Amino acid sequence: MDKRLMIVTGSANPELAKEIVGPAGVYLTECISKTFADGERYVQISKTVRGADVFVIQPTCNPVNENLMELLIMVDALKRASAERITLVIPYFGYARQDRKAAGREPITSKLVADLIHTAGADRVVLVDLHAEQIVGFFHKDVRVDHLYANSVHLKFIKSLGLENLVVVSPDVGGVKRARAFAKKLDDAPLAIIDKRRNPLEHNKAESLAVVGDVSGKNCLIVDDIIDTGNTIIKGADLLKKNGANKIYVCCTHPVLSNNAAARIQESCIEMLITTNSIPEDPANTCHKIERLSVADLLVDAIKRIHNNESVSELFE
Amino acid sequence: MDKRLMIVTGSANPELAKEIVGPAGVYLTECISKTFADGERYVQISKTVRGADVFVIQPTCNPVNENLMELLIMVDALKRASAERITLVIPYFGYARQDRKAAGREPITSKLVADLIHTAGADRVVLVDLHAEQIVGFFHKDVRVDHLYANSVHLKFIKSLGLENLVVVSPDVGGVKRARAFAKKLDDAPLAIIDKRRNPLEHNKAESLAVVGDVSGKNCLIVDDIIDTGNTIIKGADLLKKNGANKIYVCCTHPVLSNNAAARIQESCIEMLITTNSIPEDPANTCHKIERLSVADLLVDAIKRIHNNESVSELFE
Amino acid sequence: MDKRLMIVTGSANPELAKEIVGPAGVYLTECISKTFADGERYVQISKTVRGADVFVIQPTCNPVNENLMELLIMVDALKRASAERITLVIPYFGYARQDRKAAGREPITSKLVADLIHTAGADRVVLVDLHAEQIVGFFHKDVRVDHLYANSVHLKFIKSLGLENLVVVSPDVGGVKRARAFAKKLDDAPLAIIDKRRNPLEHNKAESLAVVGDVSGKNCLIVDDIIDTGNTIIKGADLLKKNGANKIYVCCTHPVLSNNAAARIQESCIEMLITTNSIPEDPANTCHKIERLSVADLLVDAIKRIHNNESVSELFE
Amino acid sequence: MDKRLMIVTGSANPELAKEIVGPAGVYLTECISKTFADGERYVQISKTVRGADVFVIQPTCNPVNENLMELLIMVDALKRASAERITLVIPYFGYARQDRKAAGREPITSKLVADLIHTAGADRVVLVDLHAEQIVGFFHKDVRVDHLYANSVHLKFIKSLGLENLVVVSPDVGGVKRARAFAKKLDDAPLAIIDKRRNPLEHNKAESLAVVGDVSGKNCLIVDDIIDTGNTIIKGADLLKKNGANKIYVCCTHPVLSNNAAARIQESCIEMLITTNSIPEDPANTCHKIERLSVADLLVDAIKRIHNNESVSELFE
Amino acid sequence: MDKRLMIVTGSANPELAKEIVGPAGVYLTECISKTFADGERYVQISKTVRGADVFVIQPTCNPVNENLMELLIMVDALKRASAERITLVIPYFGYARQDRKAAGREPITSKLVADLIHTAGADRVVLVDLHAEQIVGFFHKDVRVDHLYANSVHLKFIKSLGLENLVVVSPDVGGVKRARAFAKKLDDAPLAIIDKRRNPLEHNKAESLAVVGDVSGKNCLIVDDIIDTGNTIIKGADLLKKNGANKIYVCCTHPVLSNNAAARIQESCIEMLITTNSIPEDPANTCHKIERLSVADLLVDAIKRIHNNESVSELFE
Amino acid sequence: MDKRLMIVTGSANPELAKEIVGPAGVYLTECISKTFADGERYVQISKTVRGADVFVIQPTCNPVNENLMELLIMVDALKRASAERITLVIPYFGYARQDRKAAGREPITSKLVADLIHTAGADRVVLVDLHAEQIVGFFHKDVRVDHLYANSVHLKFIKSLGLENLVVVSPDVGGVKRARAFAKKLDDAPLAIIDKRRNPLEHNKAESLAVVGDVSGKNCLIVDDIIDTGNTIIKGADLLKKNGANKIYVCCTHPVLSNNAAARIQESCIEMLITTNSIPEDPANTCHKIERLSVADLLVDAIKRIHNNESVSELFE
Repeated sequence: MDKRLMIVTGSANPELAKEIVGPAGVYLTECISKTFADGERYVQISKTVRGADVFVIQPTCNPVNENLMELLIMVDALKRASAERITLVIPYFGYARQDRKAAGREPITSKLVADLIHTAGADRVVLVDLHAEQIVGFFHKDVRVDHLYANSVHLKFIKSLGLENLVVVSPDVGGVKRARAFAKKLDDAPLAIIDKRRNPLEHNKAESLAVVGDVSGKNCLIVDDIIDTGNTIIKGADLLKKNGANKIYVCCTHPVLSNNAAARIQESCIEMLITTNSIPEDPANTCHKIERLSVADLLVDAIKRIHNNESVSELFE
Repeated sequence: MDKRLMIVTGSANPELAKEIVGPAGVYLTECISKTFADGERYVQISKTVRGADVFVIQPTCNPVNENLMELLIMVDALKRASAERITLVIPYFGYARQDRKAAGREPITSKLVADLIHTAGADRVVLVDLHAEQIVGFFHKDVRVDHLYANSVHLKFIKSLGLENLVVVSPDVGGVKRARAFAKKLDDAPLAIIDKRRNPLEHNKAESLAVVGDVSGKNCLIVDDIIDTGNTIIKGADLLKKNGANKIYVCCTHPVLSNNAAARIQESCIEMLITTNSIPEDPANTCHKIERLSVADLLVDAIKRIHNNESVSELFE
Repeated sequence: MDKRLMIVTGSANPELAKEIVGPAGVYLTECISKTFADGERYVQISKTVRGADVFVIQPTCNPVNENLMELLIMVDALKRASAERITLVIPYFGYARQDRKAAGREPITSKLVADLIHTAGADRVVLVDLHAEQIVGFFHKDVRVDHLYANSVHLKFIKSLGLENLVVVSPDVGGVKRARAFAKKLDDAPLAIIDKRRNPLEHNKAESLAVVGDVSGKNCLIVDDIIDTGNTIIKGADLLKKNGANKIYVCCTHPVLSNNAAARIQESCIEMLITTNSIPEDPANTCHKIERLSVADLLVDAIKRIHNNESVSELFE
Repeated sequence: MDKRLMIVTGSANPELAKEIVGPAGVYLTECISKTFADGERYVQISKTVRGADVFVIQPTCNPVNENLMELLIMVDALKRASAERITLVIPYFGYARQDRKAAGREPITSKLVADLIHTAGADRVVLVDLHAEQIVGFFHKDVRVDHLYANSVHLKFIKSLGLENLVVVSPDVGGVKRARAFAKKLDDAPLAIIDKRRNPLEHNKAESLAVVGDVSGKNCLIVDDIIDTGNTIIKGADLLKKNGANKIYVCCTHPVLSNNAAARIQESCIEMLITTNSIPEDPANTCHKIERLSVADLLVDAIKRIHNNESVSELFE
Repeated sequence: MDKRLMIVTGSANPELAKEIVGPAGVYLTECISKTFADGERYVQISKTVRGADVFVIQPTCNPVNENLMELLIMVDALKRASAERITLVIPYFGYARQDRKAAGREPITSKLVADLIHTAGADRVVLVDLHAEQIVGFFHKDVRVDHLYANSVHLKFIKSLGLENLVVVSPDVGGVKRARAFAKKLDDAPLAIIDKRRNPLEHNKAESLAVVGDVSGKNCLIVDDIIDTGNTIIKGADLLKKNGANKIYVCCTHPVLSNNAAARIQESCIEMLITTNSIPEDPANTCHKIERLSVADLLVDAIKRIHNNESVSELFE
Repeated sequence: MDKRLMIVTGSANPELAKEIVGPAGVYLTECISKTFADGERYVQISKTVRGADVFVIQPTCNPVNENLMELLIMVDALKRASAERITLVIPYFGYARQDRKAAGREPITSKLVADLIHTAGADRVVLVDLHAEQIVGFFHKDVRVDHLYANSVHLKFIKSLGLENLVVVSPDVGGVKRARAFAKKLDDAPLAIIDKRRNPLEHNKAESLAVVGDVSGKNCLIVDDIIDTGNTIIKGADLLKKNGANKIYVCCTHPVLSNNAAARIQESCIEMLITTNSIPEDPANTCHKIERLSVADLLVDAIKRIHNNESVSELFE
């Protein structure tokens, strides 16, 4: 492609952007981004982007509304500055779990965000391990989506652990398909499911957990896309232990880790949480059990291929 | 609402439309719809719809492209005829399973169809038991969606069967959540899953099935949203039998029944297929084991509430 | 143009596509297109089209709804696969005759189709001998239209026949302008018109035909854009004969030939039907009197000029 | 309809508006419309239109650009003033003849105007005897079009003339269909066509006229939609006379009458020009031979029916 | 209007909403709005709004991004819940000062916000004393804007103070027009301007202030639309004092009061800051010198008039 | 940029276009533009623009509606002719002063025009010294705006006059900011303001003027963006004289000069009007006191930079 490649970062994950620019063969294009005393965000791109093929690195992680608005404002500035093409690299897509109406009079915020991104003027988005693949269909047809899979990043590491006698566990009934797909790549490991249900004997306790499938004496790998407060997997790990499981590993792409989840994971029976840097590490909320793999190489590959008009799906063949 | 209610039907399921109009308190508004010798569809609404609140009944079942195009052309005619509001009642939403890119360079036809419906000029759609709830988010914000659940129709009938010692079975890993939700309404029945996997001993046979969970000596209810060729559930039923299951019932909302599925179901070990008339019965492809429940009452309720500006979500509380 | 040229074909007229690719200097890009058992169309482009200038060959002839939907789905797949520009080459534009409301509460399906094509995401269309030139104005301003004229293809052949004493005949009052323009290119041949009118003497017979203009002892060339069932031209030819015409030739661009028109033409007094391959030949519906000229060269010229940013209107100067 | 009816007029044809308001049962809503010294148009609606069903009367006749821009600005003002619905009554639709590309690099101004009307915010348009019926399809689907036919107005008057032995004449090959439709309503009168062609004997004279069909000894009624400079019909009338015609009447809906056409018609062999007030009379460009019939009643009927949600197509049955 | 009026509030200024509902004759419609542990906002409207005329009260003050996103999500929920019309009452429109590009590669965030509001699905907005009146033109034509003026609220109070010998002061060159308009309503009080300029004698000091106009011995009323950090008016007040002014009053509509402006105003020579509750009071950032007038009555008037289709501009005549 | 640069001109200011093409390194691309007898504009681009980067030079000065419509029609023709990018160079943007609603039921014509330009299909606009900078925000996000400042053109000339003891005067309260910015570039010259107010002593005279600031014995430079009828500056100049001013110069970008303003300026006490050729000179309305500086160089710089993807904001650093 004859347009020059430029990479800008928002405030959400500048470390990730720094990992990307070098291998992508460019310098980071500076962007002034500050918050005024009244809370309004101000953005100015520091040098001309006219005619350029611009990529913006910004996961919309916590504080999601700040990060999202900063991103939209950056797009507005880039568009007005006549960038030729604006691609948003959003390794963690906030609000992904609000992708359907679970009750009357709820929003579908995930779709709203996709619309806002279109309205601001983005031409493309690059997303990683979406909570639901249908979210790709939320974007207006003029916003092209490249959906990347971080599987290979995780699998390489997990295989290096040499775990034997492994069972892949879905932490809930909604994640069985994802767990199954993951198991396939691990020599077609067997599957177990943690099923949350009402306990008929203890009426005042709303729900109890049960394991569907056999985990006794096995190493377990709980697979999820997002770990938020971590409660589900911590309770699930306890249950697996009660059911005779050997070591418990957890694997997820997006470490939201709300409510100081890191500390609770540290204290849990979980051996290790294998995750990525799609969301930046919060030094005040981390622990030794968390292994953060970088998605920078994956993103660099995708950015180069998009810039050079080469197939992105080939990355996953 | 002060606008008059009118109901029109396309060619896909006129029987369903006839079941609806009476209870909805109106006559069916006639619509000339014919195919010219060259295959082009011609449509003309037979009487004035100016200012009316028009509902069009049309599942986009097989032949899906004919039915979809007829629907779009009807919307064009209604819009040009100054209908005040056009609501499409699509009890079966064709192409729903093409809701994500499973491989590179695939379409997301489900999203395309949602866009076509918007372009034609529909104001609202009424859908039933979507393959994925995210499809609601595929529609442009100016097309309001009411997503109805046929659960209650099925559950009333199933309870009337007085089945005991029941286990709810998901026919694959993608349907566990749906099966679990269904089980909840059946006294929180236990769950089993049919898992499709490569057989390590027979390399030339691509896949084999296994049951996760206990079905021995139990009555099974396989729950799915769509039954297409029926191969998955017929093989699944065989497997359940091999695993000691008692009687096998199947429940689905949308009886696509391709490739003469009815005959094969008749010959299978399945006791009964409980389904609905979201797709019309093909007299050449039916059998005694199929119990078709009508969704007409559900649709009448929804149409009346939409017309009268009353809550639709209340129907499912 | 620096983008690579790629050509894909739908299922409607693959033979035409094969005639085009070689002279256009490329191979046909493969595309999987199949119909599932339930009637849903599935499409997948077989190799990367990222950044390419893609042309899709697809007349929307009978079965028009299947062909149109396949085309729209292909556009969706191409767009999601990041084709840089998508040009639809539609040598026969189905539904062209539904271009106005002839009565209340009719659709304008031709406009609807133009809107659907825009919605799917096409950037350009190439059309041939439209039923009404105004249809160009039905397309959204972001879909650029190149309207090609097949006149030169017909004229070259007709001149080679060496017909003398020729009168050009319009088969009805709506086609006089087209016939006149054609006559101009044939040494300004005289004009006759077949006029359909009520017969005042035979009240129960709705209409009778009359010739306006002189055809006695002359060779006639009936000119039309589309021949559908062929009834109009067959009856017209009989009438011309009754009025003393010598040989009757018919010329049209689009051989729809519904209701086994070929057999009826064979048996009629028509000498020859000169037409094109804008619509593919149906082996079960053809006859010796039909001379099919290829529009492939015309389309190759247009494709090359569009790809190379050269004037298309120059082709017709 | 519960919204109040309001009627506003632009500067193009206030006399027509005055004829309309009384029978429509309302007063004319005042609107300040003036041109500043620098040529900019200023518009202000004089009283509140909030929630009203507003009709604006404005043919876009000469000066077409002034009238069109005034209309668009009025729509902007009405929309911002929260009119509930804005219907443009455009009895003469300027630029209608620029409805297709006759040569490379031409605009389709008629489509552009339809788009501008949509952009300004109109909800509906009412048009009369469009140059091409396809123009209805130029409007965005959110602008509903009512296309009215002034036939009945003309026919009633023409019948009152008691003309016998009448032949209906199309002034050119493009208008044959219109003339034919008109003839049908006049006891299926016979048809003749004035054909413009190159004269093979006089090479330096570009074109000569010929009559196709028999007019000798007959009264002729030339039928057209628009009479602009009048040259075509004056020359045509001369030719009819040379071919032995008796009296020549001309009938058209839209009297553009450019280049002082009235004076030339007065001096011609035309007996009478029967037309309407879709375009206002210019006192400096009129003559005794012109009979102006009013379309006010037709427009009042349409306005009332649109306001009351009654069928408009019934007007023409 | 026949639709029922409903009022909902976001989290930004619930007190103002409470002041509005009673006089508007309705109860506040409840809305669950909470922030999840991961920072994502969740919203659910508590009862049916189908067919209702819904007003949402939400100034987009600090934290502006949180408040804006909450508002957009509420609109999404209301729209999906089939509210008939959604009007956003935004007494303080955040980002209003980012209404133009002051330098290259800046955004126009104010326009972006207007676009986001349109995208979310709002039908109308009600704004108060916009920083620039042109912002009304930033909204898409389908979002109707009512721009209210709080002048009357301020003027009534100021007149009650009985200040004599008053000069109205613009705090900078950009606000002269606003100050002049205000002065007109105060018996055409004289005008003074605080002009910020470089000091030619002190080169290292970037800027100094000067008063244009006479303030000696007079009571001053500094008029502004927004007071943010308060630095401009505090320095301006000092300068006025130095120039012999008597008492200094300040009047503004929107009390942003960043950086603990209240404390600094308390310590300044300003007698009183007359402002409104367009932005809610922060108990930790207030002082005795601040007089907060309520805009609730103004908003109630506007809401009633909009709901009843009565003129809003009449409020300001 | 690899696309070829082409420049076309409308009828409004062909002289300016001629000044531009040479320095821009191209020939003027011819365009047939004529008005038919009925007032309709016809446009045809004379040679192929397929794939080209086309700039259209057209200020929308008086006759503004003619010039605007011609511009829109040219865009339509260029777009249909497959120009790759269409940039409108509009040195004077007509209707700029109708940028806000000053009273109820007024339009915002400036926004309407921006929308019409988008609808016609322009990709970019280049504007000069807009009446309000917010107008940039009126354009749809897909129309990129480059706003140029003619300051440097004026300043260079004014400095060459060697005026001493200069005070910069704003002709009204709305222009103080513009005057202040201009003064900054003239060694931070002092500021005065002409304030229009009611005269308390002469009740029957609506308004009188007063000078705020000191002008006695000084040379005055009245700074404005547009001079329309010139009444404001002529009266202002008189007042400055009465207040003891020395010589009076006036500087503006856009010389509208309505109502034969040139003659009145010639007779006034104004020494010189320094303006530009953003609007062409009317030979019948000019005078010796008017000094027209050319903005051609500025526009050439901008066109080249836009074509070559170089920063435009750098021009003003």
